[in-house]
Amino acid sequence: MLNTERLKKVYGQLEELGVRQMLVSDPVAIFYLTGKWLHPGERFLGLYLNADTQPQLFLNDLFRFDEEIGAVKVPITDTTDLITLLKAYVDHSAPLGVDKELAAKFLIPMYDAQIASGIRNTSLAIDNARALKDAQEIEWMRESSRINDRAMEQFRACIREGITEKEAASQFLSIYQSLGASKYSFSPIVAFGANSADPHHGPDDTVLKEGDTVLIDVGCVYHDYCSDMTRTFFYKTVPSEEARRVYELVRNANQSAEDMCRPGITLASIDKTARDIIEEGGYGPDFTHRLGHFIGIQDHDFGDVSQANMNLTQVGNTFSIEPGIYNAKAAGVRIEDLVLITEDGHEVLNKYPKDLQIIE
Amino acid sequence: MLNTERLKKVYGQLEELGVRQMLVSDPVAIFYLTGKWLHPGERFLGLYLNADTQPQLFLNDLFRFDEEIGAVKVPITDTTDLITLLKAYVDHSAPLGVDKELAAKFLIPMYDAQIASGIRNTSLAIDNARALKDAQEIEWMRESSRINDRAMEQFRACIREGITEKEAASQFLSIYQSLGASKYSFSPIVAFGANSADPHHGPDDTVLKEGDTVLIDVGCVYHDYCSDMTRTFFYKTVPSEEARRVYELVRNANQSAEDMCRPGITLASIDKTARDIIEEGGYGPDFTHRLGHFIGIQDHDFGDVSQANMNLTQVGNTFSIEPGIYNAKAAGVRIEDLVLITEDGHEVLNKYPKDLQIIE
Repeated sequence: MLNTERLKKVYGQLEELGVRQMLVSDPVAIFYLTGKWLHPGERFLGLYLNADTQPQLFLNDLFRFDEEIGAVKVPITDTTDLITLLKAYVDHSAPLGVDKELAAKFLIPMYDAQIASGIRNTSLAIDNARALKDAQEIEWMRESSRINDRAMEQFRACIREGITEKEAASQFLSIYQSLGASKYSFSPIVAFGANSADPHHGPDDTVLKEGDTVLIDVGCVYHDYCSDMTRTFFYKTVPSEEARRVYELVRNANQSAEDMCRPGITLASIDKTARDIIEEGGYGPDFTHRLGHFIGIQDHDFGDVSQANMNLTQVGNTFSIEPGIYNAKAAGVRIEDLVLITEDGHEVLNKYPKDLQIIE
Repeated sequence: MLNTERLKKVYGQLEELGVRQMLVSDPVAIFYLTGKWLHPGERFLGLYLNADTQPQLFLNDLFRFDEEIGAVKVPITDTTDLITLLKAYVDHSAPLGVDKELAAKFLIPMYDAQIASGIRNTSLAIDNARALKDAQEIEWMRESSRINDRAMEQFRACIREGITEKEAASQFLSIYQSLGASKYSFSPIVAFGANSADPHHGPDDTVLKEGDTVLIDVGCVYHDYCSDMTRTFFYKTVPSEEARRVYELVRNANQSAEDMCRPGITLASIDKTARDIIEEGGYGPDFTHRLGHFIGIQDHDFGDVSQANMNLTQVGNTFSIEPGIYNAKAAGVRIEDLVLITEDGHEVLNKYPKDLQIIE
């Protein structure tokens, strides 16, 4: 059902962008607003928003459904002249906002037909609304991370003598499902030893050996909301004092960045706190990515926690804090939690311990 | 390396569309022309084609590579002003062709900057070129289907007492890889009994039982080229005379459609041959999809074998012929091969038998 509070947020954002009408085509945005998943594939799907009228959903007959969703359904077929139809709805004397990913095959005919006085990329109106989670979204984000915490305990128990990364990872999905998650939020990363110094390593046939780091970066989906957490363990022994030092630096960067989270600070300042600690520790060049990303219906929602992002944190933001040091000689370590910005400061959604743990 | 023959085909197609310059952004099209896979994700990637100059590849530093590919590499970064850069290359006094999937976030700024005298969707220039396979492509398409034939024999051997669809499907990838394929061309369909009456059934926990149909729709990738084949078996017995009749109708529709394939006939006429046989047999309403789709680097290349497609077959076309009857009471049966159009007529790329087979 059309979520009027979320719609209001989007109209507010559109007003700030100086646009009164928008054609939303991203299936994720349409789900966010209507609670209905529609997967049009190569076909057109559009939710036309105009503060003066009721929303209109342009829907191919192939995806027809009976349920009322609070938007007027406008049926289309593979032979509908889409532009002629849209012209009957769009105010051609005003600018029209569209989604950033709207495909040229739909957009070019809109320009050719001069469907509006101008066409603007107004994805930000939806992205900014989605960055402010409401109570229902927060509840599902919390539960998704609660499942992730419980799952991590079971993933840790899969790590034993002679196992390969692939064999370990192959057990994760059923663990998630047994805990109530519907699926992965992204393909899990399991990296042993030197592999953990590659931030995006995919599980392969590497066999676990004593002294390995064991990096597990995983997340699941609960009620359409994503979790995402990383822990790095050691197998049997910590291979060197330097490895221990690297772990503690990352641990400290993660903790310090989380501790400072509150409304009204720049996202860049959070990145800086973590980065400064790693740089002062002498591993600046080995922290090769931004500190974090926003998360919600998608594992990577719009928005990041990076040196370049001067936007201010707001109540309802949820993002990852995931510093890492990727040094093949010493160790590859990343520690990641999800954080929610609250009135009082913040809430860390992951509770799984972060102290250095040795798997025996 | 830039394939000059393929490039020539694309320029020829562009000329027919009345456009002399195109910005190709689809990674598959760029692979087709350069032999290089690039995965830009949300970032811009573009190959600028203009018959008067050498192709230019606009490439983010994140995906930089040293190899020479016969196009001038124009480095960009996340902070590059893309439009200013493109303006230095694009002839603003002539129309510019772009890919059908080019995203609004790139296209709108091009319109705003009046980068060209007009913007046109010229994806067809690439799609039409890709529909005419060259000798190298045909060799890989043949080998991909040869592997698929051999794999089908092993998949059949997986079907035994008490197995579920999921358990059967879970064995397929390693079989493909042992035969030299790199991966699936699409997620395999395994459907037992009534499930085979759902054309897109995903493998689930259904347990095989006597009298079931066993529908296997599978394909792999060899040297970046896809195979795709369906066979429908029966387990232990054919459950009814009607089921046998349904099988023979589909078999006959498949064979008759393949037999007629030659250059210069409409794709619609091939669909009609198969459809007429199934309609005359009384199961017209149970054949719910088009007869086939083009195939190559993608499992679904542009182009289909459908009632609406009045285009003529050409030498080098490769497409599927996959009639089906989806009748939950009688049986769900589909039989699919890939066909190559040749000077003399056609070549069926799949040799795996199509006679009714009972798995004991």
